[in-house]
Amino acid sequence: MISTNEYFDGQVKSLGYTTSIGNSTIGVMEPGTYEFGTSTHETMHVIEGEMIVKLPGSTAWLTFKAGASYEIDADEKFQVKVSAHTAYLCQYK
Amino acid sequence: MISTNEYFDGQVKSLGYTTSIGNSTIGVMEPGTYEFGTSTHETMHVIEGEMIVKLPGSTAWLTFKAGASYEIDADEKFQVKVSAHTAYLCQYK
Repeated sequence: MISTNEYFDGQVKSLGYTTSIGNSTIGVMEPGTYEFGTSTHETMHVIEGEMIVKLPGSTAWLTFKAGASYEIDADEKFQVKVSAHTAYLCQYK
Repeated sequence: MISTNEYFDGQVKSLGYTTSIGNSTIGVMEPGTYEFGTSTHETMHVIEGEMIVKLPGSTAWLTFKAGASYEIDADEKFQVKVSAHTAYLCQYK
């Protein structure tokens, strides 16, 4: 089954599914700034576009372009800025 | 805006958006065999999982794993088999 999810009044949408290695979502963010919280470890891959990210415990904004990825531990918060529609793959494991 | 699309009774779902280089969708396919038609040139990138594809005019099934991509001209039909949930990026240009 493929789940459909919407966040931030539809400014972020994702599709959830399960693979042999765990749960994943692919999603799209409209231009904006978002704060996300994690309940499990997440590996975020930028598919198209670009994310500017403030990682947990960091004061710096780091840029991740298409092809780049970053990881977030469980029970953390992180902020993401995108200036154009940006697509991602998030793996929960 | 991010559009939400469903095909084949929800066995294939996608999210559509526009970037500076054109229109894109990211999507997920449930296990199954599907025939798609193109109205514009498409570049299909496998994000997670694997697609077994019969390209237009071909009788062979080719395997495209995560990270691989293939192109389809406008006004063509192609068939895709997936044996596990498979995520893709499709760029229309």
